[in-house]
Amino acid sequence: MTTTAKKTPRTDLPAAIAGRTAIVAGNGLLPVAVAESLRKQGGNPLIVAIKGEAEPALYDGEHAEISIVELGGLVKILKAEGISNVVLAGGIRHRPEFRAALRPGNGNLVALYRFLRAFRLGDDGLLRAVIATIESYGFRVVGAHEVVPDILAPAPGTMTRKRADQGSVANMRAAREAAVMIGALDIGQAAIAVGGRVVALEGVEGTDAMLQRVAELRRAKRINRKGGVLVKCAKPQQEVRADLPAIGVSTVENAMRAGLKGIAVEAGRTLILGYAETVAAANEAGLFIETFEQVQDGS
Amino acid sequence: MTTTAKKTPRTDLPAAIAGRTAIVAGNGLLPVAVAESLRKQGGNPLIVAIKGEAEPALYDGEHAEISIVELGGLVKILKAEGISNVVLAGGIRHRPEFRAALRPGNGNLVALYRFLRAFRLGDDGLLRAVIATIESYGFRVVGAHEVVPDILAPAPGTMTRKRADQGSVANMRAAREAAVMIGALDIGQAAIAVGGRVVALEGVEGTDAMLQRVAELRRAKRINRKGGVLVKCAKPQQEVRADLPAIGVSTVENAMRAGLKGIAVEAGRTLILGYAETVAAANEAGLFIETFEQVQDGS
Repeated sequence: MTTTAKKTPRTDLPAAIAGRTAIVAGNGLLPVAVAESLRKQGGNPLIVAIKGEAEPALYDGEHAEISIVELGGLVKILKAEGISNVVLAGGIRHRPEFRAALRPGNGNLVALYRFLRAFRLGDDGLLRAVIATIESYGFRVVGAHEVVPDILAPAPGTMTRKRADQGSVANMRAAREAAVMIGALDIGQAAIAVGGRVVALEGVEGTDAMLQRVAELRRAKRINRKGGVLVKCAKPQQEVRADLPAIGVSTVENAMRAGLKGIAVEAGRTLILGYAETVAAANEAGLFIETFEQVQDGS
Repeated sequence: MTTTAKKTPRTDLPAAIAGRTAIVAGNGLLPVAVAESLRKQGGNPLIVAIKGEAEPALYDGEHAEISIVELGGLVKILKAEGISNVVLAGGIRHRPEFRAALRPGNGNLVALYRFLRAFRLGDDGLLRAVIATIESYGFRVVGAHEVVPDILAPAPGTMTRKRADQGSVANMRAAREAAVMIGALDIGQAAIAVGGRVVALEGVEGTDAMLQRVAELRRAKRINRKGGVLVKCAKPQQEVRADLPAIGVSTVENAMRAGLKGIAVEAGRTLILGYAETVAAANEAGLFIETFEQVQDGS
């Protein structure tokens, strides 16, 4: 496969991300938001959809598809399409079975080996290794927030009409402490506290499934206190170019079903997917969304 | 209500627990095991069943029933029945709505107030306050392990035919670190690691629900690595007279359904409910059960 010439930098894009951008798209709405934003800015992003993960809408425009294990294949595509910048956006729900990927002819085996080794390191180690590998081929990995303006949670304060009451502040404190702690261990990025106590911690299941669990625990009267707060924050050692915690309309809806009073996220290190829609959904549901000061890097 | 004379100490019971014993029975099989063991030893335990929690089998013998909020009522019963020792056994699934308990005439309001205040402190604070309150009336609170011989997990080693392989040792280490950490924050006492990574942390839902979650995540291919280990250990600041972590046959069955290779528990601070049956179930399922050295008290 030959490498096509790189296109000239687009002056209508932020200077920091001159050149064509590829979006490696996992699940969720973040890749869609990144693609839309880049197009609005006059860009022509290439979607590299991860099989079984990316939203169907992403297959409408110019796109390629890779399996999560084909990192070698990704590099070929990026070279062929003259890509300068890469955004890794969206989650990976289906953990790959790497043994299946070890068959010959499956792209770059050195990259795959690194990938494999990295997988043992957990999400965080994996992402760092993937980023390092992509950059070792001369591409620049940028965060979604570097190409989508205003996607980051704003400075500490209240985003909604409702604000956190005294009980919610205690819940925020408890859930935040727990979320930072499990983040430091690279387990999850979210926790829920009710009545001043942490009742649920995020593991592989993700935030929406955790919220559904809390809704069930309430129905079963295993949680009988009213209210409660969901806290999401980045890991202390977070690689900010990928896997930043995110909330959106579905988070608000699930928080409401779980009987929570609100959501608190870390300012500057959480993505708000659809700011206006998310705030409108929270206002309609009578929930608050607060942002709190950035967690100190404990690494 | 008058206080009946205390019965003479029974010499067939361990000297440490002379006098009649009451079992305040929450859910699960621990209260049943404690009652059976005391009867085998010639004791005549009084069952104080917590409404909506205690196993139906416990209503067969001599028993009283209280609601979780009636701590004042409990004290009256203990006095009336000439109780010397109290064992708090079993979990509380249904968190009480304390406002409903604040109606007048509901037993001892001072005790209830302490109870209420304590509830904000979480499980651990609550248990300590309940124990202190019961003891302030002259009763002695003893741990289930003080009246049931051999119920504690044995010294570090392997309880089953299978033992932990290298991968499982890595899983044990990761899950144990996480379990100790969430224990220190009084959130839960268990964690599950697969492929060297923690995938689930116990909150209010409990161990069985967490294992079921992991079984579902596997079916949905969100966890694709094989094996995995459940670790249970006491909180570093654990009050050992109540709420020690426990495993039993149902834990083994759920671990098997979750595709785990085994279970590891803290030696000396975990209860094995039905030692022979639990080990037999694990051997039949091809799972290991290991015990590890006691976690240092970090409080």
